Amino acid sequence: TGTASDFIDLAVIGGDGIGPEVVAEGLKVLEAVSAAKVSRTEYDLGARRWHASGEILPESVEDELRGHDAILLGAIGDPFVPSGVLERGLLLKLRFDFDHYVNLRPATLFTGVRSPLDVARVAPDGIDFVVVREGTEGPYTGNGGALRVGTPAELATEVSVNTRFGAERAVRDAFARAQARPRKHLTLIHKHNVLSYAGHLWRRTVEEVGAEFPEVSTAYAHVDAATIYMVTDPGRFDVIVTDNLFGDIVTDLAAAVTGGIGLAASGNINPERTAPSMFEPVHGSAPDIAGQAKADPTATILSVAMLLEHLGRGDEARRVQEAVAADLAARGDAPRSTTQIGDAIAGRV
Amino acid sequence: TGTASDFIDLAVIGGDGIGPEVVAEGLKVLEAVSAAKVSRTEYDLGARRWHASGEILPESVEDELRGHDAILLGAIGDPFVPSGVLERGLLLKLRFDFDHYVNLRPATLFTGVRSPLDVARVAPDGIDFVVVREGTEGPYTGNGGALRVGTPAELATEVSVNTRFGAERAVRDAFARAQARPRKHLTLIHKHNVLSYAGHLWRRTVEEVGAEFPEVSTAYAHVDAATIYMVTDPGRFDVIVTDNLFGDIVTDLAAAVTGGIGLAASGNINPERTAPSMFEPVHGSAPDIAGQAKADPTATILSVAMLLEHLGRGDEARRVQEAVAADLAARGDAPRSTTQIGDAIAGRV
Ligand SMILES: CC(C)[C@H](C(=O)O)[C@@H](O)C(=O)O
Ligand SMILES: CC(C)[C@H](C(=O)O)[C@@H](O)C(=O)O
Repeated sequence: TGTASDFIDLAVIGGDGIGPEVVAEGLKVLEAVSAAKVSRTEYDLGARRWHASGEILPESVEDELRGHDAILLGAIGDPFVPSGVLERGLLLKLRFDFDHYVNLRPATLFTGVRSPLDVARVAPDGIDFVVVREGTEGPYTGNGGALRVGTPAELATEVSVNTRFGAERAVRDAFARAQARPRKHLTLIHKHNVLSYAGHLWRRTVEEVGAEFPEVSTAYAHVDAATIYMVTDPGRFDVIVTDNLFGDIVTDLAAAVTGGIGLAASGNINPERTAPSMFEPVHGSAPDIAGQAKADPTATILSVAMLLEHLGRGDEARRVQEAVAADLAARGDAPRSTTQIGDAIAGRV
Repeated sequence: TGTASDFIDLAVIGGDGIGPEVVAEGLKVLEAVSAAKVSRTEYDLGARRWHASGEILPESVEDELRGHDAILLGAIGDPFVPSGVLERGLLLKLRFDFDHYVNLRPATLFTGVRSPLDVARVAPDGIDFVVVREGTEGPYTGNGGALRVGTPAELATEVSVNTRFGAERAVRDAFARAQARPRKHLTLIHKHNVLSYAGHLWRRTVEEVGAEFPEVSTAYAHVDAATIYMVTDPGRFDVIVTDNLFGDIVTDLAAAVTGGIGLAASGNINPERTAPSMFEPVHGSAPDIAGQAKADPTATILSVAMLLEHLGRGDEARRVQEAVAADLAARGDAPRSTTQIGDAIAGRV
């Protein structure tokens, strides 16, 4: 057995659809870049297992997962699983049980990547920001209910739950990230003119925690206005902090303007390391292209870079990022298979 | 006194900032186009009145407003009114009390208008859809609360309230609109994989009401994915139906991709006409450019077209839309004042 620095004990959840395909390339790059010995334990979780056995995340499996250094996840789900079953029972369960309160999503427009935006006009200085999406509260807690379902008198509620404790730890993490970046700028995204109770909590938290970070300038945008800025002036953003649902929305939009979810990485991070953090591409299982070697593994490979960074292997993380950047810059229009892209990036690290 | 067809009894709330400036141009075009005699009653509501008297919407004023055929509103608010006061006390109060359950927001990329998107690539066939945003439920009901405010143990909730009654009437309106359009396509935007109680209510409602509209095809997009489509393939949308908060978000994004909120019109509609409907540009009071004749009145003028349509004056509505389209097509890069734009459009109707 080695020390943390020369051994990575990884849990791997390939999942469904293109999940296992992209994860294979992520692992390939991990092996290629890391001086650490990588131990991988594969977990069969997701739609396939649910169809076969009805199991989603058995407690014993969750206990095992808890023992690893980190989790690499591909994608979960297929169209035949009822909506919410795997999201709530597996993905969100892990985020909540493992206290992944920092859902970290970088948005960088790499050279050579096409944005749907008229970039020369709306983002002449590029796009490079990171979103700290709170991961354990907000409308994601499953707190809600329904009455008289299926009748004309049906009533359904969804309760967004927000605590100072929960907002503050995400906000503090976001400030620390802003502090470490050249521009040192933090934007809170919320909707405090309508969601006043939660909005004012978030707003005060940013003001108060901000006093600890005098070098970081702050801004605020309502979520609706933020979507406008995302497409008319995305260069204004440096670090964004926001709640779980707004973060879900703006990070998909951010992924789109920086070249699509084929490139968007994410980390579900437990900064205190009381449980393993989980790294996953933002995209889903894409059953329509599964098994055709068409999926772009870049988002997963960039998620591996985040995993390395989280495990204190910053140099290796940067080598992966640079290899991806070089690969993207060199990409022509000729289509490449999932494996070809993985090989190319692994060859560069 | 005339009949409905030759007399429009209008309530006008210019509001704050650029509000009165853009409303003046909207009224100019209304006078120019309409064969009806227009009676206008101006109401002094908004930040100015609140600063002067602490009044937001006195009951007697609301009663008076109720007596008009329709309301034209400019914009409300300034940076010195605490967040939420005028939103909750005036704008949302009118939407709720006057049962504006159809918040209608068209998104059309007019010829001659620049989109921040690389349109030739992502929207070669143009952008032309309309959003039916539910206007009286969801997270907008003000149902929430806070405990131990200002302490480390603070807790804040926001409750999204959804009823079959409320969703169904918005959904039925959206289907009827889809039925009347050439493409006859309706997309529900929600997040039913996470907000399961509300999401399933909306989903079932669309399925069941859809049975009454067999010619209308339907699609579904999670709100996060919908923001991606908005920038990578907005041409796919025809009619969108969605809840109050998702509608707020996607309509700002829709406005951005079709040339900005300077052009985005909206109607807060009570289809049963049990109270006056209210028409307003999507933009805010923009205090930074107020009084400088820089505001684009086009959004307000298009809102006037929606007002005319609602009052059964479809021909006049179309003339306004055509005049706006012609004006936009002829716009060069030379800046024009608010009044110049209003004059130009009024001259074309
Ligand atoms: C699959 C879904 C539950 C998830 C979310 O809403 O968080 C996804 O959209 C994401 O962004 O990771
Ligand atoms: C001002 C605000 C309350 C309002 C809303 O959230 O509905 C605005 O953003 C809009 O879209 O009309």
